[in-house]
Amino acid sequence: MYLAKIFVTHKKSILDPQGEAIKNALHRLDYDSVTSVSQGKYFETKLDCDSKEEAEKITDSICDSLLANPNMETYRFEVEKVGD
Amino acid sequence: MYLAKIFVTHKKSILDPQGEAIKNALHRLDYDSVTSVSQGKYFETKLDCDSKEEAEKITDSICDSLLANPNMETYRFEVEKVGD
Repeated sequence: MYLAKIFVTHKKSILDPQGEAIKNALHRLDYDSVTSVSQGKYFETKLDCDSKEEAEKITDSICDSLLANPNMETYRFEVEKVGD
Repeated sequence: MYLAKIFVTHKKSILDPQGEAIKNALHRLDYDSVTSVSQGKYFETKLDCDSKEEAEKITDSICDSLLANPNMETYRFEVEKVGD
């Protein structure tokens, strides 16, 4: 069994209104040391695969076909072996 | 300047309907090796602090006061030093 940790974030060129809103809220709460905030999505998937390579291939395909919007978002992931 | 990577996930005891919906969608797309999916939030914040300890303290406080819902969610974070 493999665990994939997937991070989906906005592309750098895309405005992140949620991140801006959070930053403004933090400044109102007097967290003035916060200079930038970006919000993304985080997924953990468990995969029943025979090899790490297979798990990485499937995870990449899942990100492309469902989890990330290729027009606006970019993704990266880490795959590790875990017990059942 | 410090970069905090923050992961907010559902508590184990809380139903994750988004994760279930994604798992079902993946099964319809014939990704049968996926046995579980959980969806959470991912934040990256930049902090203008003098020490890593201070950055960690502020990040913990931010999570408690704004980013995570303590009733349903749990969080963890990593702080690392970065250039400006």
